Amino acid sequence: MSINLTILGCHSATPRVNAHPTSQFLNINNRTFLIDCGEGTQVQLRKYKLPFSKIQCIFISHLHGDHYFGLIGLISTFMLHKRTQQLHIYGPKGIKEVILLQLKLSKTWINFGLYFHELTSKSSELIYEDEKVEVHTIPLKHRVYTNGYLFKEKEGLRKINMAKIIKNDEIETCDYRNLQLGKDFEKKDGSFLKNEELTLAPTPIKSYAFCSDTMYNESIVPIIKNCDLLYHETTFLKDKKELAKTTMHATAFEAGTIAKLAMVKKLIIGHFSSRYPNLNDFKQEAQEVFENTALAGAGKEFVV
Amino acid sequence: MSINLTILGCHSATPRVNAHPTSQFLNINNRTFLIDCGEGTQVQLRKYKLPFSKIQCIFISHLHGDHYFGLIGLISTFMLHKRTQQLHIYGPKGIKEVILLQLKLSKTWINFGLYFHELTSKSSELIYEDEKVEVHTIPLKHRVYTNGYLFKEKEGLRKINMAKIIKNDEIETCDYRNLQLGKDFEKKDGSFLKNEELTLAPTPIKSYAFCSDTMYNESIVPIIKNCDLLYHETTFLKDKKELAKTTMHATAFEAGTIAKLAMVKKLIIGHFSSRYPNLNDFKQEAQEVFENTALAGAGKEFVV
Repeated sequence: MSINLTILGCHSATPRVNAHPTSQFLNINNRTFLIDCGEGTQVQLRKYKLPFSKIQCIFISHLHGDHYFGLIGLISTFMLHKRTQQLHIYGPKGIKEVILLQLKLSKTWINFGLYFHELTSKSSELIYEDEKVEVHTIPLKHRVYTNGYLFKEKEGLRKINMAKIIKNDEIETCDYRNLQLGKDFEKKDGSFLKNEELTLAPTPIKSYAFCSDTMYNESIVPIIKNCDLLYHETTFLKDKKELAKTTMHATAFEAGTIAKLAMVKKLIIGHFSSRYPNLNDFKQEAQEVFENTALAGAGKEFVV
Repeated sequence: MSINLTILGCHSATPRVNAHPTSQFLNINNRTFLIDCGEGTQVQLRKYKLPFSKIQCIFISHLHGDHYFGLIGLISTFMLHKRTQQLHIYGPKGIKEVILLQLKLSKTWINFGLYFHELTSKSSELIYEDEKVEVHTIPLKHRVYTNGYLFKEKEGLRKINMAKIIKNDEIETCDYRNLQLGKDFEKKDGSFLKNEELTLAPTPIKSYAFCSDTMYNESIVPIIKNCDLLYHETTFLKDKKELAKTTMHATAFEAGTIAKLAMVKKLIIGHFSSRYPNLNDFKQEAQEVFENTALAGAGKEFVV
């Protein structure tokens, strides 16, 4: 398992008893991330018994309340739990000011490293990188500055092809690392064996793209091309296509179209408006263009 | 019914699945007030089907998150619901800045009158008054600037004593208003009948005092003296008396003592620390000094 995504909330606008605002808990290559953090997210994390003290980074898409009003409460809880591990917050410019103001007013001193990475670019950029994972922004079109996020595993090492290795007496265990790194093998006579003849391609990398909130926007297609899992917002159905445009949201049909154009493997839809009683209508509409569509739902887990 | 109080949350610190932070919905003489507004309060208001669009004023005791992190979400929801009625927020200095900053960042324009009444006084003051209700602050002792609130009905009109009136031919219906207002009656011969001989005392006024968060503080006793209903925080039991002092909270025994000294009619206790599995221990401890003690609990209603 390289990507494990748990939906904590997937409804738009105001939180209700059984409709929680956007938040997702993501494990990718043993990195633990939170994406968006609407009001009540910390209770959802507890409800689904997720190891939320392990969250290393929180990625906030935009500063509408249903995507971040739970952040200050979660940070306060980390503080009360005497967290010591660093916490990194990625989000639009302004997020630092609003969090620090609230900490100041409550005379709270944070006992762990709290780092803000404020985003302002309108082009996709690499904002997080370690030896196993990369995160890129996906510039979205909404009423305020908004980014989706593309979470990608990094390509691992090439695999030693033992069937080929055993035919070469000269190759020893101490040479494997260089082969895994893609280097050719230099024989004693000074000639080279091509790396591809001794190794196999690394495990294919997996990726997850989160896109909320946004109007229909084909310019994201090259960024999310071929990703394994795409979450795309679908606040409305086609019957409210004009309202979707005015409020800069997407319809289920449009989400399906983006998934198709980007040739993703699977689409999850969410950010449902409360005006629609039957969520299956969203699924059916998206499936008109993209068959492998699933509905988001609080507590639902998606594994790649 | 003149006072109707519904507890929305009564636990301290971090919100959990079945433990909600402080908030109370108060109806007094047909005024609808909210007291404190921890994270998730708007969901609790929906859960208990309270008419939350009617809230006229919100009274925030202090700027610790478990008492106000739900406020910005509730205001945003009012805005999405196209509220037109004015909303008045009473709370410590700083509350206006933090709410307006969040509204600015989300590019939200409020479509109703939103008025902030920031408090700084360290003495009890009358902060709200209309023809039927008064609200006074109760200065509390906590780690940050904190006020409790005393909600009092205003004394109504005196009642016409019909048994006496019918014996006086000169008194007509048009004279009743002056009698209700307490004026003496002037007879045709120029002599006066004393008001007390013609009227009865008005219905006794009811009052509710909310005191959270605070350490044991006898100086509040004169302010809340004889009130019908007192909510007093009890974060700890006597076993953590020293911790209560350090963190500027109260024990159940101390809450009971304040209720006894103030000769209130009924005490409600809440703001329980999660370290205590059995809430009845709080009740028993308070009852060592004050018998008529009730435990707060989400959804519980208290009527005076």
